[in-house]
Amino acid sequence: MIMPKKTAEDFAKQQKEISISEFFEKNKHLLGFDNPTKALLMAVKEAVDNSLDACEEAEILPDITVKIKNLKEDVYKVSIQDNGPGIVKEQVPRIFGKLLYGSKFHRLRQSRGQQGIGISAVVMYSQLTTGSSTRVISRTDEKKKSQMFELVIDTKKNEPEIIKQEDDADGIPGTGIRVEMDILGRYRKSQGVDDYLKQTSISNPFAKISYHAPDGTKMTFPRSVDQLPPPPKEIKIHPYGVEFGILQRFLAQTSSRTLQAFLVNEFSSVGQQTSKEICIIAKLDPNMKPQELEREQIEKLLGAMQKAKVQRPPTDCLSPIGEKELEKSLKKEYPGAEFITTLTRAPEVYRGNPFQIEVGIIYGIPEMKQDAPVEIVRLANRVPLLYQAGACATTEAAKDIDWKRYGLQQSGSNVPTGPAVIVVHMCSAWVPFISESKEAIASYPDIIKEMKLAMQDAGRNLSRYLSGKRRAGDAKRRIQIFERYSGEVASSIALLTKKPGKDIEKKLKSMISQRSSMKEGDKNDEGSPEGA
Amino acid sequence: MIMPKKTAEDFAKQQKEISISEFFEKNKHLLGFDNPTKALLMAVKEAVDNSLDACEEAEILPDITVKIKNLKEDVYKVSIQDNGPGIVKEQVPRIFGKLLYGSKFHRLRQSRGQQGIGISAVVMYSQLTTGSSTRVISRTDEKKKSQMFELVIDTKKNEPEIIKQEDDADGIPGTGIRVEMDILGRYRKSQGVDDYLKQTSISNPFAKISYHAPDGTKMTFPRSVDQLPPPPKEIKIHPYGVEFGILQRFLAQTSSRTLQAFLVNEFSSVGQQTSKEICIIAKLDPNMKPQELEREQIEKLLGAMQKAKVQRPPTDCLSPIGEKELEKSLKKEYPGAEFITTLTRAPEVYRGNPFQIEVGIIYGIPEMKQDAPVEIVRLANRVPLLYQAGACATTEAAKDIDWKRYGLQQSGSNVPTGPAVIVVHMCSAWVPFISESKEAIASYPDIIKEMKLAMQDAGRNLSRYLSGKRRAGDAKRRIQIFERYSGEVASSIALLTKKPGKDIEKKLKSMISQRSSMKEGDKNDEGSPEGA
Repeated sequence: MIMPKKTAEDFAKQQKEISISEFFEKNKHLLGFDNPTKALLMAVKEAVDNSLDACEEAEILPDITVKIKNLKEDVYKVSIQDNGPGIVKEQVPRIFGKLLYGSKFHRLRQSRGQQGIGISAVVMYSQLTTGSSTRVISRTDEKKKSQMFELVIDTKKNEPEIIKQEDDADGIPGTGIRVEMDILGRYRKSQGVDDYLKQTSISNPFAKISYHAPDGTKMTFPRSVDQLPPPPKEIKIHPYGVEFGILQRFLAQTSSRTLQAFLVNEFSSVGQQTSKEICIIAKLDPNMKPQELEREQIEKLLGAMQKAKVQRPPTDCLSPIGEKELEKSLKKEYPGAEFITTLTRAPEVYRGNPFQIEVGIIYGIPEMKQDAPVEIVRLANRVPLLYQAGACATTEAAKDIDWKRYGLQQSGSNVPTGPAVIVVHMCSAWVPFISESKEAIASYPDIIKEMKLAMQDAGRNLSRYLSGKRRAGDAKRRIQIFERYSGEVASSIALLTKKPGKDIEKKLKSMISQRSSMKEGDKNDEGSPEGA
Repeated sequence: MIMPKKTAEDFAKQQKEISISEFFEKNKHLLGFDNPTKALLMAVKEAVDNSLDACEEAEILPDITVKIKNLKEDVYKVSIQDNGPGIVKEQVPRIFGKLLYGSKFHRLRQSRGQQGIGISAVVMYSQLTTGSSTRVISRTDEKKKSQMFELVIDTKKNEPEIIKQEDDADGIPGTGIRVEMDILGRYRKSQGVDDYLKQTSISNPFAKISYHAPDGTKMTFPRSVDQLPPPPKEIKIHPYGVEFGILQRFLAQTSSRTLQAFLVNEFSSVGQQTSKEICIIAKLDPNMKPQELEREQIEKLLGAMQKAKVQRPPTDCLSPIGEKELEKSLKKEYPGAEFITTLTRAPEVYRGNPFQIEVGIIYGIPEMKQDAPVEIVRLANRVPLLYQAGACATTEAAKDIDWKRYGLQQSGSNVPTGPAVIVVHMCSAWVPFISESKEAIASYPDIIKEMKLAMQDAGRNLSRYLSGKRRAGDAKRRIQIFERYSGEVASSIALLTKKPGKDIEKKLKSMISQRSSMKEGDKNDEGSPEGA
């Protein structure tokens, strides 16, 4: 045997822990900080998403102000202020100064954030690129003073480091949060902050957003509805979505005394009857203690949980935008559009997770070209997705539809062309993103299928509008032709019948107008069998 | 103001830490555990990559055995044993039972692993899908006993939990590691373990790998060279690749007493002269204390470090396969191929990181179709990449080449077609992967450029071979035609000249063979100006 030149003892000296902050500092592209343009968007997005989540959960109509100022070259000051409930003093440093910290990861409930990484990653990016600390001002009670923190992340420990802390600095009216940071960024009009805010306004019609762009432009995205959506409920995991290790852990940690009670208490959609049935399929005693199940028994239990007929998970954990609300938003954002249709599908389930798809089609947008690809606005839990469109389930679903059937041009299986925007929204307690930066939805077959059905439904509405428009155009042209010749025809008939030409022409014209209005009222000969 | 229904205090109760294990358990697809087929591959890949890294660093010729056994339905037992240096007793639990732990993250040095996530993620996936613990047997000294651990990960804490620990269980001959785990998986011949091991054998010609496939097949990938490559050296960061926050941290933590010494000691390629120059450009005193630099001074320093002319980083941190070694591997793996060319480009730099590209083209592989796309074998630091080909820099570079110029068929800017394999290897102290699962290389322009140049170089060799082959074929056909008619021509000439036909035919034939051999010896009229 050759003696190793470097031994296991030598290696041991180099083996050490890597903090999650160090990991993401080196791999910041995984969080979406690939380039300065995207970084500027990420900074605004993470803060605004958090503000909307907080306002919604506290049942406050959101009023958010975003300000971006170009300090020098590629350095920008970003400030986001909300009227949410604020964050208690003790939690501010950890929420902003520690990766993997938050309130949303451990709950199964629809929210914009789900990982506990977003805003602290922006703080880390800010200090990495500009060496600056982040300023956070929080006020949780009108009667109390605001709290100001200046903080950075100690990346070796993944812990917040407070540089400065003061009471009552630059107070916030009412309650809320303001966060201010300097970052290396780049501003551009498209696929950046402007698009993000516009689309956020579409998917959150109850939010008011004011925006001061770095080029000096000030704009406001007003509310189009004055009511918050019903708050989504937290749910438990569904038996169809559970894995061995999770079931094992649940069994070990439950406070339920019997297996039957365990199944009812720990999972969604399982009642006493279903629970008994699962135990029968698994050939297990419903009265046994959950902690006493052995390996093979857990395997049997898991198998039975997949085999038993279990009701679908409850869907009150979902908060779709709503057909009417989405229509109002779209009318506000696309005031010149010829036609708008929106629809919300019934909830469905993928891998035990309930989800819901909504679609809107806006057609005849004056500023869009006839022969350019339609724009696809992708939304997940009301958050616009602006990058990685090619890798997203929405794009795959859109390409897999024969849009010619619905009146749009399409070459091969590409995105269709036309002066239209297609909005696709997926909401779920757990959206399967393909990366931490949450830019694209994974192409699970169940999700693709629902997206396609939703787009086809909306497509039929579009097709009905377009064929109505075409028929109206045809009828108009026919009338114009008849009218053009009616004088001549009338005088010929007058010659033949020896009656006055004027009268005949009048009668002809009234016949034409009657006929054409009858045509208009004809049965729809295209479109779907269902009503409009 | 509306009083929030849920206050900041309510939120505070839910705000808590998320362990990295919990995070990746829920997001296991980010680590490559998307489906059972890929999971089986990942389990083998992470273990074999670690074995190769350890053997190479300890300067031991690797001898690795991979065994996969189908236990029942979708459950497989995976066992990987190596003859590396082993792991000391104290470190075994953390290496295998803690995510983000290892020896490679904090060093800038070419290695297969770089994150400290891989093998512990497999342990986590194993316990999640089968509830099983992982068995690790380690021996660091022939004179001492083997150590056996059975362990799982406590995902809430991201700490190892030892189930059982014994001396001298199933001893390992010499030194080394054996890891055994049960996982939910699926076995298939292509894009799985078989392909991975075959390609690993190509990129590690010094390794011997024995493989017992789940279908009972046993195979061995022997060594094609008997010497390890020179070990890559650890390097320091290059001034061109540094960011504000990193520079700030370096300045605070350095033991150097002056700015000038700091630059020389902490960065690669900076000598006294360059260091002085950087200080001059930054208008900073070279004798000032590094800890005393203020914010604006750090900004100036950073700017100067980018502006100054600094030598390229040293390239002894790189360990390419080598032209000859790669050729030997390819000859061994594709014994029936008509033509093989390999080349290693000189090292280049992206964002301050040195890297090197190697390419091999194998043409005329009997089992491949003429009209199918060529196979692209993608390698990063000697590790085969089997998924996400479409998102990889190698594929982008290959599509961006006009392959018709090099004798391959190609429609549009697709991958070319033909009975060929193109091998592309990138080695670097830091390979920019697009995800934690390390399946594709990010498309940085500097990397794409080098890959294209390498493929074009190899393409010219291929083109030379193919045009030689074509010319030889043309000449052969010409001779055949001449020969077919030579009898007739000879008898016609005989009639005209009244000389004996036999003699004339003989002379004609010798003329033909002289001519064709002259043609063969002609100057190369196609191919590149450089020599073969």
